[in-house]
Amino acid sequence: MSAARLRLGMVGGGRDAFIGAVHRIASRIDGHFELVAGCFSSTAEKSKASGADLGLPEDRVYGDFAEMAKREARLKTGIEAVAIVTPNHMHYAPAREFLKRGIHVICDKPLTSTLADAKKLKKAVEASGALFVLTHNYTGYPMVRQAREMIAAGELGAIRVVQVEYPQDWLSEKLEDTGQKQAGWRTDPARSGAGGSIGDIGTHAYNLARFMTGLRLEALCADLDSFVEGRQLDDNGHVMLRFEGGAKGMLWASQVAPGNENALRIRVYGTKGGVAWEQENPNRLLHSPLGEPVRVITRNGAGAGEAAGRLSRIPPGHPEGYLEGFANIYSETALAIRAHQAGGAPDPQIAYPTIDDGVEGMAFVDACVRSSKRDAAWVTLNM
Amino acid sequence: MSAARLRLGMVGGGRDAFIGAVHRIASRIDGHFELVAGCFSSTAEKSKASGADLGLPEDRVYGDFAEMAKREARLKTGIEAVAIVTPNHMHYAPAREFLKRGIHVICDKPLTSTLADAKKLKKAVEASGALFVLTHNYTGYPMVRQAREMIAAGELGAIRVVQVEYPQDWLSEKLEDTGQKQAGWRTDPARSGAGGSIGDIGTHAYNLARFMTGLRLEALCADLDSFVEGRQLDDNGHVMLRFEGGAKGMLWASQVAPGNENALRIRVYGTKGGVAWEQENPNRLLHSPLGEPVRVITRNGAGAGEAAGRLSRIPPGHPEGYLEGFANIYSETALAIRAHQAGGAPDPQIAYPTIDDGVEGMAFVDACVRSSKRDAAWVTLNM
Amino acid sequence: MSAARLRLGMVGGGRDAFIGAVHRIASRIDGHFELVAGCFSSTAEKSKASGADLGLPEDRVYGDFAEMAKREARLKTGIEAVAIVTPNHMHYAPAREFLKRGIHVICDKPLTSTLADAKKLKKAVEASGALFVLTHNYTGYPMVRQAREMIAAGELGAIRVVQVEYPQDWLSEKLEDTGQKQAGWRTDPARSGAGGSIGDIGTHAYNLARFMTGLRLEALCADLDSFVEGRQLDDNGHVMLRFEGGAKGMLWASQVAPGNENALRIRVYGTKGGVAWEQENPNRLLHSPLGEPVRVITRNGAGAGEAAGRLSRIPPGHPEGYLEGFANIYSETALAIRAHQAGGAPDPQIAYPTIDDGVEGMAFVDACVRSSKRDAAWVTLNM
Amino acid sequence: MSAARLRLGMVGGGRDAFIGAVHRIASRIDGHFELVAGCFSSTAEKSKASGADLGLPEDRVYGDFAEMAKREARLKTGIEAVAIVTPNHMHYAPAREFLKRGIHVICDKPLTSTLADAKKLKKAVEASGALFVLTHNYTGYPMVRQAREMIAAGELGAIRVVQVEYPQDWLSEKLEDTGQKQAGWRTDPARSGAGGSIGDIGTHAYNLARFMTGLRLEALCADLDSFVEGRQLDDNGHVMLRFEGGAKGMLWASQVAPGNENALRIRVYGTKGGVAWEQENPNRLLHSPLGEPVRVITRNGAGAGEAAGRLSRIPPGHPEGYLEGFANIYSETALAIRAHQAGGAPDPQIAYPTIDDGVEGMAFVDACVRSSKRDAAWVTLNM
Repeated sequence: MSAARLRLGMVGGGRDAFIGAVHRIASRIDGHFELVAGCFSSTAEKSKASGADLGLPEDRVYGDFAEMAKREARLKTGIEAVAIVTPNHMHYAPAREFLKRGIHVICDKPLTSTLADAKKLKKAVEASGALFVLTHNYTGYPMVRQAREMIAAGELGAIRVVQVEYPQDWLSEKLEDTGQKQAGWRTDPARSGAGGSIGDIGTHAYNLARFMTGLRLEALCADLDSFVEGRQLDDNGHVMLRFEGGAKGMLWASQVAPGNENALRIRVYGTKGGVAWEQENPNRLLHSPLGEPVRVITRNGAGAGEAAGRLSRIPPGHPEGYLEGFANIYSETALAIRAHQAGGAPDPQIAYPTIDDGVEGMAFVDACVRSSKRDAAWVTLNM
Repeated sequence: MSAARLRLGMVGGGRDAFIGAVHRIASRIDGHFELVAGCFSSTAEKSKASGADLGLPEDRVYGDFAEMAKREARLKTGIEAVAIVTPNHMHYAPAREFLKRGIHVICDKPLTSTLADAKKLKKAVEASGALFVLTHNYTGYPMVRQAREMIAAGELGAIRVVQVEYPQDWLSEKLEDTGQKQAGWRTDPARSGAGGSIGDIGTHAYNLARFMTGLRLEALCADLDSFVEGRQLDDNGHVMLRFEGGAKGMLWASQVAPGNENALRIRVYGTKGGVAWEQENPNRLLHSPLGEPVRVITRNGAGAGEAAGRLSRIPPGHPEGYLEGFANIYSETALAIRAHQAGGAPDPQIAYPTIDDGVEGMAFVDACVRSSKRDAAWVTLNM
Repeated sequence: MSAARLRLGMVGGGRDAFIGAVHRIASRIDGHFELVAGCFSSTAEKSKASGADLGLPEDRVYGDFAEMAKREARLKTGIEAVAIVTPNHMHYAPAREFLKRGIHVICDKPLTSTLADAKKLKKAVEASGALFVLTHNYTGYPMVRQAREMIAAGELGAIRVVQVEYPQDWLSEKLEDTGQKQAGWRTDPARSGAGGSIGDIGTHAYNLARFMTGLRLEALCADLDSFVEGRQLDDNGHVMLRFEGGAKGMLWASQVAPGNENALRIRVYGTKGGVAWEQENPNRLLHSPLGEPVRVITRNGAGAGEAAGRLSRIPPGHPEGYLEGFANIYSETALAIRAHQAGGAPDPQIAYPTIDDGVEGMAFVDACVRSSKRDAAWVTLNM
Repeated sequence: MSAARLRLGMVGGGRDAFIGAVHRIASRIDGHFELVAGCFSSTAEKSKASGADLGLPEDRVYGDFAEMAKREARLKTGIEAVAIVTPNHMHYAPAREFLKRGIHVICDKPLTSTLADAKKLKKAVEASGALFVLTHNYTGYPMVRQAREMIAAGELGAIRVVQVEYPQDWLSEKLEDTGQKQAGWRTDPARSGAGGSIGDIGTHAYNLARFMTGLRLEALCADLDSFVEGRQLDDNGHVMLRFEGGAKGMLWASQVAPGNENALRIRVYGTKGGVAWEQENPNRLLHSPLGEPVRVITRNGAGAGEAAGRLSRIPPGHPEGYLEGFANIYSETALAIRAHQAGGAPDPQIAYPTIDDGVEGMAFVDACVRSSKRDAAWVTLNM
């Protein structure tokens, strides 16, 4: 932890929101950020109430994100970064406002609700000179970094096969009809975009595969379904992947698979070995060198390398979890912001998902939807 | 065990063969069969040597399967059933010879090396009146029966998603160039047919999905690869499945996935719950009723039903394995043969893979190969 | 499998008996034995009925084991070995009869119902010149052999700690009052001896620790309980162990631990590493070299040695189970009998539990009971 | 998070200390505390350096805990609570100083280095009226609370058996000779007290068993060893437990068990069912109702009750870990402090380890050492 905390604002994340609280905890864990301002709701009153819950001074709580951006930019101790944790369709507009004023943006995923917005946002980022971080938080898990480091070092040889999946069960029934807020916007094309499960969790799976292997996608074909009657967006997606260099993959995202909570899992196989990782038990990575027994590498334990070590806080055998993985994204961001503020180059070890990952994620959703409409034809990403 | 053992012959399965020994053990476990004759090799000398190893009288060991069929059919205590355990291209001809003479056939999978042969063999079976059993042995595992029984009883509701996979790693390198016999014929189109991994293990995965769910396939699309340079047949197959009634599936077969030995695994999800089963730890079935904790049902243990119980030999917690699952196919066959000999109908609980499963398996391989050649277009089975 | 099968008889194991059927299957799996005679019950009628079930000729089915021993010894093709599968108190008398006539004995465990009988039986074995094999079947599991081989080779260094346990749950309630036969004799001091759970399964755990580590016991202290009201024998035993050379251990046997079926598990730790093995998932051994990631060694797979390999039938990933482990004891016995018949020394790789293990097991039970009565005082085995 | 954070001080936890950083993160996670002062080392210079690392104003960083207590008590915005994270022998003196001035104490475990100190500290707590919280952090895991709630509600029936263990491997070699700081004081009787592994981790295991079951101990017998040559304190402890009402237990603590990182594990069995929990995969609790399949209850998931829910932050399937469990102790403490400040009674749901747990832990260590010296005689806790 360095001495002075970065001043953080938040857009969205009021009472009842799930992900706002996660961002707040993640920003606190390593002590790099202090939440000092927020626009927690577009209803001023609700925003004030949430701000009060959080102990913020009244004059730093806003009912309008544009006003917040404007005023905070002028304050001497205004926010240095803002976390945008609204539903997908409300990412673009606030992000642009803050970027315009040089305030760094930490934005929830998927990037936007449309590919067009995503591309516009990319331009806004490039024009601003500010940092833009997308919270594909699973890339913050130490053992994901371990796998990535091993693959980059050639320990698995040339990659042949990538199997990634993210099944859940919470939308097995028509939860959106019960008034449940999370289910409401996630199944609504106006707020979520063209993708349902494929956007909400499929993009996580896709990003994880890309981050871990570094392989670019050449083409995909997708078969999307809305199994729950009357649901407008997909709740199950089957995707086949073709990567550059000939590697092949399968991706499965589902919100109708009973018994699966957040069972994100990835397996990568190359000419020399394989790795397997599961989000629900994330402190271990199975490594299978060809022709040798499978090895269980643990976070910070024997056999773990530098990439995992620098994102670990505690000894092996003491599990770090989802919030620490999320916090790692925040801490990487803090390091990058400080390097940026100091005018120097960030440490090359620092890694976090960027605007490019965001655009690619939206292109992935767009491609899946296009492919599925054309009877699972092979399509390329439109980036 | 009933009093008199059925007299069994074998074609193939000489020294160095893997699956012949498995069939012999499986036939012995429950004491229903006694191996009394065999044509273990097409080289008479080799066949004699194998017969001697097995303690068979010399006059019951043959160098020619046609001669064996002819002579055994005439003997008063000739064989009542024959196990055919040769490579795929050598299933059709011997099967036909024995069927012609009313000798029941237990045949290894996949059924043949071509779909055309499979269809001809089906006609031969129909003409013969004899029983034909295909050793898709994984259907003999008690907990597979448990899952099937639960699905048939509607405990999972309407099926939505089927995820099945069979990864191995033994062909990650070009083993066929080393003279290894198993690798040799399995990667040779002349002996194996048009499918490599998709025929050898993909058919097991497909059959398991079909057996467990009872759902018919409407269409599939497949992306097959030969990752090992110079290999003629696929060693990795990615397949998307569409079942009648709208269920969707993914199937993965691979022989180049380091760390996987025989990691056949299936997960089935319906409107009311899911099940998950793994061949490498086969005595348990995970059952996830929607909205309730996952339950671990054990073979013969609490929560296990009749279908699993009748194929169990020992108390729960004492693992039964691959050989017992295989033996269950033999024992079901014995019950069916005895019912057939008695002229009665077999017990409706008896289940084993039939000639129809064999033809469907070949149609599956054929469809995968056709689809893959057409850039993973959707195709139907040609049955 | 060698050509001619050894002729096997059985004492006990009639209808409703569990372990008799296990012995029969185990004796068949590798084709080394053929059951040709039996005294399945002390009631002639019941014995005949069981014999008929098994397809034995009437004149080889006896109602009296002494008569069986006498007659079989005189027959030209009389039995060469006998399996004794009666309750504990009925091991000694029949064993003596067969041994007297030079017929090899395969006997279920624990050896007898009293330590005195055990010692007398040892003398009978020594006098006879025949082989005596005790079916501590868990020593037949390939991965148990793997661990033993590694420990003997010094791969774990000097052994410090041994943790072994065998919990079950089937006697959590007073099952013996329901007429259940297995529960009846196992909770009856007259038939079972002075030990309940400590005799029935504690001896397995103790034998496994001894077999795997090769360490001799110096002393133990035990706290035995009968948790179920009115039960005469212990249903839970906690034991601390002191081995020669300073290694320490804990042993837990329980029949009142809900959720445990046959959860025999052993962990051994030395100066250089550890191993862990579980009976319910027996095809893998966890090996933890100090300072390196844990490795998963699989039966017949990468990293497995010769001791496991020679007791494996099928490739890794295809699970072998309890019956195969049991069959390994029978097959080791067959090899030993054949060497004995040939007048030569058996292959030094052959290993099976002997009369000495049986006596030591009874001394273990006796010591546990003595210690427990003296408030868990340290006692030595009285051998 | 409530509005104003409680002002926290820290004694110990300077550079290189492991547990100080853990306490700081734990205090931050839920936003209840703000670290505002500290005495991070008894060397003023070192303390200043650590304080600067942490961004504290210089005048709130002390080189002497007594001075800190005195001054902070006088400050208008002085600390409201202090975390004491020094080695064991340095708990008593600072705790007394802060308690004397009514400052609440959060203290690392074990309570002190001697039982006498523990008892004196208890008196100091009683005299002060301030709160005293001992960070037996494993009691903060939600699924530990789940188990405790189930047991208290009688879901397992009358408890019969408790198996608890805490194996590690980091002291398998003589790490204390390498200058490693953690190993240094933990193996030194002057700083650690009479217990080595039994004090460091055995107390955690004991406390967990007590917390989860609520059962009082009647007696124990212990066999302690120092396996590493020249080590002064035990590095392995085997303990048998007798609880009130007749339940029995085994406890194993080891720091010489290769392959074990922090493998704290507990299993509790009663007349109606059992539970099993593992610290290294802490988000699930196995529940085995007698005669039914084992159920996997997940944190915040189906089947989890209120006690676990109130300590959960995020949805099931997103793992919470060691730091969140630790943070739960801090958050319970914050709730208790606020209730105390408001002069009301704390919510009865609040639970945290107290001075009584601390004294009992020291009595446990004392009893183990006494018993072991008397050849593992049964002894009672001297409280």
